[in-house]
Amino acid sequence: MGLLEGKEMDVAIIGAGPAGLSAALYAGRARLSTVVLEQGMVGGLAATTHWIGNYPGFPEAISGQDLMQRMEEQARRFKVEFVFTPVSGVSKDSERRFKVDTGEGELLAKTAIIATGSVRRRLGVPGEDKLQGLGVSYCATCDGPFFRDKHVLIVGGGDTAIVEAMFLTRFAKQVSVIHRRGELRATKVLQEAALRHPKIQFFWHSQVTEIVGENNVQGAVLKDARTGETKLVEADGIFIAVGIRPSSEFVKDMVETDERGYILTDDRMRTSTPGLFAAGDVRAKSLRQVVTAVSDGAIAATEADKYMSELQ
Amino acid sequence: MGLLEGKEMDVAIIGAGPAGLSAALYAGRARLSTVVLEQGMVGGLAATTHWIGNYPGFPEAISGQDLMQRMEEQARRFKVEFVFTPVSGVSKDSERRFKVDTGEGELLAKTAIIATGSVRRRLGVPGEDKLQGLGVSYCATCDGPFFRDKHVLIVGGGDTAIVEAMFLTRFAKQVSVIHRRGELRATKVLQEAALRHPKIQFFWHSQVTEIVGENNVQGAVLKDARTGETKLVEADGIFIAVGIRPSSEFVKDMVETDERGYILTDDRMRTSTPGLFAAGDVRAKSLRQVVTAVSDGAIAATEADKYMSELQ
Repeated sequence: MGLLEGKEMDVAIIGAGPAGLSAALYAGRARLSTVVLEQGMVGGLAATTHWIGNYPGFPEAISGQDLMQRMEEQARRFKVEFVFTPVSGVSKDSERRFKVDTGEGELLAKTAIIATGSVRRRLGVPGEDKLQGLGVSYCATCDGPFFRDKHVLIVGGGDTAIVEAMFLTRFAKQVSVIHRRGELRATKVLQEAALRHPKIQFFWHSQVTEIVGENNVQGAVLKDARTGETKLVEADGIFIAVGIRPSSEFVKDMVETDERGYILTDDRMRTSTPGLFAAGDVRAKSLRQVVTAVSDGAIAATEADKYMSELQ
Repeated sequence: MGLLEGKEMDVAIIGAGPAGLSAALYAGRARLSTVVLEQGMVGGLAATTHWIGNYPGFPEAISGQDLMQRMEEQARRFKVEFVFTPVSGVSKDSERRFKVDTGEGELLAKTAIIATGSVRRRLGVPGEDKLQGLGVSYCATCDGPFFRDKHVLIVGGGDTAIVEAMFLTRFAKQVSVIHRRGELRATKVLQEAALRHPKIQFFWHSQVTEIVGENNVQGAVLKDARTGETKLVEADGIFIAVGIRPSSEFVKDMVETDERGYILTDDRMRTSTPGLFAAGDVRAKSLRQVVTAVSDGAIAATEADKYMSELQ
């Protein structure tokens, strides 16, 4: 018997990243009985970002962890319960209730908000699995400090890759950005900062085909996308920032998704199942940012409240 | 010849409330040449809110003015230009450019983002016009301090009305909330605070049919919605918070709107005119909050950037 077994709530929010925390704040302020279920740590991917400069309201920029702690504290002021446990599935219990299967038992909820976000995509190359944690990392903020005075590679060309490259220069002797295209996709201000940074160099039009090393990363094999030539670049670590994939597997029978697994909703965050909402990165949408995730969360909680009023 | 005459920009953002400021931040970070046009003060309606407890990231709540100043400061770090001037219209100059008519001349812009928000709705009753500024107010934060130890009325039952009623208790001897329904529409936590406040009383099922007074407000005539009976309630001031209407009149020939004048967009903030975007309260949407406005602004600026890349 777990902590949640047989418990009944108005709203079960699955995931405590920006979308889940904002949903919790709005649900709490609406005095809905609310539980947030989180399998890892509060803050989601945002908490692993060493600084966030584009969340409106923080002109000096703020660390992802600080921002997420502030959002958690704000939601907790309104009697929202946080339970740290994995969720393995959501199903319909009756016309008016969902069953949420958690590591702490089966919870009943009138509405549920899926805010499980996304995880980093893997490269899918030889050596990646074997050397994970031995120099292969998906989180510069977490693992950067282990690479003091080392040479590290970072794979990717978007905002995350560039923010992480900049962060890694604090520790590493040299940071090499490996990008499959000839220019970055990241926001211009980030590009400019990286392109002029003395510690950062670029391998353009390059793909990683293998990560090499026995007990630790020793380098990576790069293939030039134009010529097909390969070369070995020696390095002590490799950070992978080639995009994300949604954590929607556990509800795949309950909601419609696009071909990549992102949950389809309307602009009121309603999924194909009435009473079940989705918010944040896990949702099919055009822009995945903290600022759009918190908006989704606020809308989802407000709509969950409306949905319950209409059931009555 | 005004300051802006003949100037060419990538993005003209019309309005400096939360949506406009967030759009400015994202456009600035994308290194688009960006001007924000504002006819009044920075911050829009949000800046007139004395405290905002539901913007994620500020657990202690923050005054609307402070939050808006922080957002302005953040946008200014990225070379965004602010010009304080009214905008009377937007038209297509060519396939690739808009003409924006301002008090400082005619500006040319590749894209424009309408973030003009909304203004308070009037009651439309006798006495309202004549006594505006003489006890009739649409902004408690602005005018509340003039009513120290007085009796004031506030008309409305939503979040704004209740937040303002609470604020007015700091000054007024008594605050009477006049609401046409038998229960409030405001968020539960706000309702609870107001309902137990010793200085706040309620006139339920009541409509104001007239505001009375010669040189100053002396009271209002209330009509009971159930019985049709009328009575005069004496008061020194009356605050009106019965909803908002969009400030979209100046672009009505350029964009499709709903029957109330809210601009129709898709989830990428695109209006019916390519290159012209709308964000925030002025847009047809389900939830009008600071948190949803900043999200709209970020999306609109990102989409404006994409639109220009595709034109090239």
